[in-house]
Amino acid sequence: MSEASLIIAASEQNADLFYATGFWAPDPFIFLQIGDKKLLLMSDLEVDRARSESKVDEVLSISRLADDARKRGIAKPGLVDILEIVLKEREVDALRVPSTFPVGIADRIRAKGFSLRVSEDPFFPERMCKRPEEVAAIRETIRLTEEALQAAIRLIEESEIKGEDLWLRGQPLTSELVRKVLHLTLMGSDCLAQETIVAGGAQACDPHCIGFGPLKAHKPIVLDVFPVSTKSRYYADITRTVVKGKPSETLKKMYQAVRHGQEIAFGMVKNGVQAQTIHQAILDYFEKEGFTTGEKNGRMTGFFHGTGHGLGLEIHEPPRISSTPDILKTGQVVTVEPGLYYPEEGGIRIEDDVFVTATGCEVLSSFPKVFELF
Amino acid sequence: MSEASLIIAASEQNADLFYATGFWAPDPFIFLQIGDKKLLLMSDLEVDRARSESKVDEVLSISRLADDARKRGIAKPGLVDILEIVLKEREVDALRVPSTFPVGIADRIRAKGFSLRVSEDPFFPERMCKRPEEVAAIRETIRLTEEALQAAIRLIEESEIKGEDLWLRGQPLTSELVRKVLHLTLMGSDCLAQETIVAGGAQACDPHCIGFGPLKAHKPIVLDVFPVSTKSRYYADITRTVVKGKPSETLKKMYQAVRHGQEIAFGMVKNGVQAQTIHQAILDYFEKEGFTTGEKNGRMTGFFHGTGHGLGLEIHEPPRISSTPDILKTGQVVTVEPGLYYPEEGGIRIEDDVFVTATGCEVLSSFPKVFELF
Repeated sequence: MSEASLIIAASEQNADLFYATGFWAPDPFIFLQIGDKKLLLMSDLEVDRARSESKVDEVLSISRLADDARKRGIAKPGLVDILEIVLKEREVDALRVPSTFPVGIADRIRAKGFSLRVSEDPFFPERMCKRPEEVAAIRETIRLTEEALQAAIRLIEESEIKGEDLWLRGQPLTSELVRKVLHLTLMGSDCLAQETIVAGGAQACDPHCIGFGPLKAHKPIVLDVFPVSTKSRYYADITRTVVKGKPSETLKKMYQAVRHGQEIAFGMVKNGVQAQTIHQAILDYFEKEGFTTGEKNGRMTGFFHGTGHGLGLEIHEPPRISSTPDILKTGQVVTVEPGLYYPEEGGIRIEDDVFVTATGCEVLSSFPKVFELF
Repeated sequence: MSEASLIIAASEQNADLFYATGFWAPDPFIFLQIGDKKLLLMSDLEVDRARSESKVDEVLSISRLADDARKRGIAKPGLVDILEIVLKEREVDALRVPSTFPVGIADRIRAKGFSLRVSEDPFFPERMCKRPEEVAAIRETIRLTEEALQAAIRLIEESEIKGEDLWLRGQPLTSELVRKVLHLTLMGSDCLAQETIVAGGAQACDPHCIGFGPLKAHKPIVLDVFPVSTKSRYYADITRTVVKGKPSETLKKMYQAVRHGQEIAFGMVKNGVQAQTIHQAILDYFEKEGFTTGEKNGRMTGFFHGTGHGLGLEIHEPPRISSTPDILKTGQVVTVEPGLYYPEEGGIRIEDDVFVTATGCEVLSSFPKVFELF
């Protein structure tokens, strides 16, 4: 008897499953890996497509397995009954499942006497280190993201200052309009962007506020764009902060500090480094420059999110560059995205995607970093 | 001591969580309902936004709870340690969780001595019956979907037949181009469409093949469009099948049978009806008309998917109109989407969204059903 790996999920929502099967589906299906053999158990709706599109060794039809089960006297075979038949036939008595595996199915599998080992994330750790074709896919999504960012920043550049607001072609220039231009440009190149951040002034100090309403002159505007290619399924994640008009001296210092903080990280990222030392170095540098982090008037201010995260089939995947004890490895693609947020001034963040190598890193994104637009 | 409801998920991927909190987030967060009080436990990144955007009674900061835990002597408090503190303070010893609850966390909660009751889906069954504002949101997504469908079908209408292919403005008209027009039109109205099906001829016989390459004259083209509004988060789901040129007599009969099959369902949908009787009535009618269902040459043919599914915050939600024992109820919104698929002829599907009432149903979608385009 042996242990098999089991995932039951929609590959649209489970990057490990897509990684293992190459099969994209919106509804849950069953994946088994027994030794190095990969199997799928599919509904009638997907069985033919799975046979032609997936890269597994065998695709079984659930309805045919259900017929077999009925012949064996199971009146109404459920998913777990069918799974049991397949596992017993293949002499599997133990299963390794992801930590996100649904407890409802887990309980029923355990009740059948199988032992269940809940695996740490990521389920396939090798997924963190990208193969050359994966890096190429990320590069391509980055390229298309930079094109869209160019179009968005052009709108801000072309806008006019009227009073405190930015105006374009007779209308106030809003976060919503800039976001729509980003989304449409990206969709035109088969990339899907959602919840893109175009946040002006204090809005950007709530890092997950996507931004709304008229954009202001003299205040920073954070553009954080993280689309996925609907062809390759790989993400990019780039942030630029711009200001139309005259930023305050404090804002200029904040921008320079964030840029320098990013350079500190670029200089430290390499195979084997403790990620949290990078995060701490930026925090220390900010502190030294007088940019303190902490709660003020009930709100977090300063630099209070992680420095970066893995990027690939997921927008946020391991490793993290934050206060957690991750170690960077050759082949990983991670973001480097320091920021500073003080509601009275506004928020500033700069983010690039880097490829970790044995001796350092290669910055994959190359969009210019220009703070002041004229 | 009492039982609380617990969800740990990203509301972007968990409709029950969005339904309960009104809070949209891409990363997992913790929701508790104790009696009728709703609580969120949020990271620093989201705590401010959750306080301003969610409709819960209380938002707790995980980092502040972690500080408390450290004061109590827990050196490295994890998520489940923090949850334990909150639950004990509020005298909760039992938890109801969704069947999709992650087994990794479930095991750790059980190890702390809490009892876990895995709830049937949907976690909030009241979510199946839509409130008037939810029906209004679905109607609005339907309206925008119909506008996009109009734009897509216009392309096919305007195309010319050259040999076997459709051509438009000097180029072959492809599935990809029609899909892009659908996606861009929908994004222009703040709707997000993915994996939209524009499948010609035999491609449409694999119901989850989204379609690719040049579209053919005289062969049916299935357009199945199911976007979500990025404003309201409610879906629409509409399918039309068209042919440019001269369809075969068999195809015409198939189309009429599918239309009539849909009318049979429209006449049966109402509060209290067994959904499977509707599905069976369509199967019986197709059989009577000579359109048999079953495996032929290793492929499923005929009518081999369900007649419909609930529609709302999810594209596929309960109830199902298929061979499962669901009962329709007033207030539900379901699709009615019979189809017939024979690879030698092509695939035909027609789908509308209907609102279940005490006495029947109201068809919410009104896009014209025209098979032959000239």
